[in-house]
Amino acid sequence: MKATVLIRPKQGILDPQGEAVGEALRTLGFGVSGARVGRLVDVDLDTEDPAEAHAALDRMSHELLANPLIESFTIELEDGA
Amino acid sequence: MKATVLIRPKQGILDPQGEAVGEALRTLGFGVSGARVGRLVDVDLDTEDPAEAHAALDRMSHELLANPLIESFTIELEDGA
Repeated sequence: MKATVLIRPKQGILDPQGEAVGEALRTLGFGVSGARVGRLVDVDLDTEDPAEAHAALDRMSHELLANPLIESFTIELEDGA
Repeated sequence: MKATVLIRPKQGILDPQGEAVGEALRTLGFGVSGARVGRLVDVDLDTEDPAEAHAALDRMSHELLANPLIESFTIELEDGA
C-alpha cells in the first residue's frame, strides 16, 4: 500500500525557507502574502490493511520522519483514507 | 486563497535521501519496500479565483518552486479543486 506523510513546520515556528520563498515569489511579481515550506515522504508499505498502515505511519513519523516538537504531520493513504 | 504545491523527484531520478529513509525505516523494523522524499510549499495567494490561482501556481512551480527537469509537481487548492 502506498501512502504519503506531509510534514510542515508548526504554526509559530520560524520558517526562514518559507519566508525566502515568499519573498522570491513577490519579487517575481506574484501576488502572494506568505509561504511555508515542508516536506513529504512517499512510503511503499508491505501491509494492505489501512488501519495497520496508518498506525505504522504514525509511529514512523514520530520516530524518524518528523520532529514532533516543531513539526506537524498528516498521513494520506493512497485510497484516500 | 490557500494552496499547496507538492514536489517530488521524477520516476527514474535517483533519490538518495529517499533511499536513506527507506533503509532507516527497515532498520527500525518497519515493513517498507521503498520511500521517496519530496517537499511541499503552502502558498497564501491574494486571488480567490481558483482558475487564476491554479495558473499562477503552475508558473511559480516552473519558475521557482520546482525543477521541472528532475521534479514533478502537483497543485492542490484548499477548497479541494
